[in-house]
Amino acid sequence: MTTLTHLECSVCGKIHEAGKAHNLCECGSPLLVRYDLEKARNGWSREWLASGPSSMWRYAPVLPVSKPVSMISLGEGWTPLIKADRFGQAAGLPDLWVKDEGLNPTGSFKARGLSCCVSMAHELGLKKLAIGSAGNAASALAAYAAAAGLEAHIFMPRDVPQANYIECKAFGARVTLVDGLISDCGRIVNERKQAEGWFDVNTLKEPYRIEGKKTMGYEVAEQMQWKLPDAILYPTGGGVGLIGMWKAFAEMQALGWTAGKKPKMIAVQAEGCQPVVRAWQQGVERTTFWENAATLSAGLRVPKPLGDFLILRAVRESGGTCIAVSDGASLEAGTELARLDGIFAAPEGAACFAALPALRASGALKDTDKIVVYNTGAGLKYLEAYSTRFPRTIDSEADKLGGLVTPR
Amino acid sequence: MTTLTHLECSVCGKIHEAGKAHNLCECGSPLLVRYDLEKARNGWSREWLASGPSSMWRYAPVLPVSKPVSMISLGEGWTPLIKADRFGQAAGLPDLWVKDEGLNPTGSFKARGLSCCVSMAHELGLKKLAIGSAGNAASALAAYAAAAGLEAHIFMPRDVPQANYIECKAFGARVTLVDGLISDCGRIVNERKQAEGWFDVNTLKEPYRIEGKKTMGYEVAEQMQWKLPDAILYPTGGGVGLIGMWKAFAEMQALGWTAGKKPKMIAVQAEGCQPVVRAWQQGVERTTFWENAATLSAGLRVPKPLGDFLILRAVRESGGTCIAVSDGASLEAGTELARLDGIFAAPEGAACFAALPALRASGALKDTDKIVVYNTGAGLKYLEAYSTRFPRTIDSEADKLGGLVTPR
Repeated sequence: MTTLTHLECSVCGKIHEAGKAHNLCECGSPLLVRYDLEKARNGWSREWLASGPSSMWRYAPVLPVSKPVSMISLGEGWTPLIKADRFGQAAGLPDLWVKDEGLNPTGSFKARGLSCCVSMAHELGLKKLAIGSAGNAASALAAYAAAAGLEAHIFMPRDVPQANYIECKAFGARVTLVDGLISDCGRIVNERKQAEGWFDVNTLKEPYRIEGKKTMGYEVAEQMQWKLPDAILYPTGGGVGLIGMWKAFAEMQALGWTAGKKPKMIAVQAEGCQPVVRAWQQGVERTTFWENAATLSAGLRVPKPLGDFLILRAVRESGGTCIAVSDGASLEAGTELARLDGIFAAPEGAACFAALPALRASGALKDTDKIVVYNTGAGLKYLEAYSTRFPRTIDSEADKLGGLVTPR
Repeated sequence: MTTLTHLECSVCGKIHEAGKAHNLCECGSPLLVRYDLEKARNGWSREWLASGPSSMWRYAPVLPVSKPVSMISLGEGWTPLIKADRFGQAAGLPDLWVKDEGLNPTGSFKARGLSCCVSMAHELGLKKLAIGSAGNAASALAAYAAAAGLEAHIFMPRDVPQANYIECKAFGARVTLVDGLISDCGRIVNERKQAEGWFDVNTLKEPYRIEGKKTMGYEVAEQMQWKLPDAILYPTGGGVGLIGMWKAFAEMQALGWTAGKKPKMIAVQAEGCQPVVRAWQQGVERTTFWENAATLSAGLRVPKPLGDFLILRAVRESGGTCIAVSDGASLEAGTELARLDGIFAAPEGAACFAALPALRASGALKDTDKIVVYNTGAGLKYLEAYSTRFPRTIDSEADKLGGLVTPR
């Protein structure tokens, strides 16, 4: 099983002991999980993966759970990598692929992080977990907490998509809607957790969600026969998936599983909330709070990601870039992708497709690049957003058969 | 690749040539696909499956597609089989499992059938496909037709779930809403297909959807190490999944992959539309049209399934039974399953969980039975239905923190 050795602060480098519940380092920064990769390199082979589970737990030696019985799994990860053939041709980028995270439990990539987080909470004996979420992380926490028999206390913006609301309620979570943004939700958890006895599982406030999400990086390597793509486009709200993949690429090099150039990491944000893009353009290492954040890509509405410096570092080290697109362009690209390749992406994933023309024009992407876009969720979870494009009125049904038909 | 030899009428036994487009036999009955299972038995091993694709196409030798290039795949099948531990304990049936078909493309098991059907349409050079659907088959056809570059002409009841409507529109299908039921939708396709040049892909009107769906049977065998469960509960609208699994179990015996007793096949319907249950109780081989069919389990609103005699035969041969449950009980069971085990099922899948107490009380299920319930779709696709249980008003938010919170 795991080769975990310790936790290490991402800023001050302080070592923290494994086997206990941790939030941030005393210096206020996120902790990263470290493994004995030498041991893993000697005692484990990538050839053995095919006989492991068809989920992210196939990478158990580089995941933190120490006992199989602690694993809370609903089938997360090992999602399909699909060629977006027609969209790629139309965009002049013919080697374009989608990692379809919509096929996870609760319909989003958040399942990976929360499966790992809740498994560790279960292993460490925690009972009450609390989160502020734009929606999908809440759904995933609610599902895994239900499966583990733990309490989930959830704070979401009042205008969270209905899918997330219904999921959380169905999973039996304690749901509070907040007249504010994810940053307000996170703050409420922070203010109340001590009195309530909650363990804070907000983004990067505990070290294990990133470990679940890094498996998106392991999988793309395995699915591409250990030759990493030239570029990865990642819709960046909290950015933990991007940070996690960058960590995975380093780990895989240490394991001797991959060699050579790592992918250009490209962070895609929404025009209405682009703190990472602004920091990138200013050449600074930290973001500043994005005022009046507004985008229908609920997962991108993160005004100041806690891991901003880790996102920006990965983008810089990889030779990537940061870019923002409009909501209209995202929905348009999402609809095109669905129409051309049969994949119905969340607006966050669609934003990456919307960014392709500008990235190609600027030279950030070459026509011959092998490109992987992470579609972080199912379009199904965003019916409100896509309904604006497809209003369900009788007139709008009018196809060549004349719309609504009343049979004899 | 495929060991397909020919097609055979399910009623009159007439042989039909492979390699051409077929709908029903001249006698009006569905065609079944036959393979050279002796050849497959000698030239193929179940030990090789682990190195195949993590999709239903791992069973390609017993699927009809002859050329890999014809396969239209979005990652369908190879869905997780999850123990419903807490629900099973509470129900007194501790060996209870869920095959979670909600993790398919377009969020339902229909992806399997339509992936196979559209792949064959593509291979056979068809261009325009038409379907009448309660919703999920339409979404799946729309997705695979988009991926294959074929036209999809879709007829759905006017009150189809919004998820299905938006999906079909996003995938660029030609959608017509019908003021009637799936039976009316199917009839419209039938009346117009000749003039429009459509190929009819309604349930059992072509032979390949059943082949895709039968992989649910192959998978449960593989996932249970080739020892089939004691009982399978299947939510039965058109019933093609049940028919397909029964075919798969026979094929696997011929392949030498499984031996011994096959599972009791239990068909679960909704009280508001239970033609199969009525026929079962009357001891007859065919259903009669269920008048005024009404259930919020859209996929169970099939007043007269074309394959009724095949469903009833499988149930009878297997020593199974047929049972109907109320919509209220289904939603209640779905919510319990979500709360206890973190799986948010479609109302159709939830209906099977609702049926467990009566099946246990009648002796149809024993406490020691290994039971697999097929959850045919994601609860996410039925927000309208589940919203009735979780109205989103400020008052209803009231948890111990006092409901809607306006941060300072």
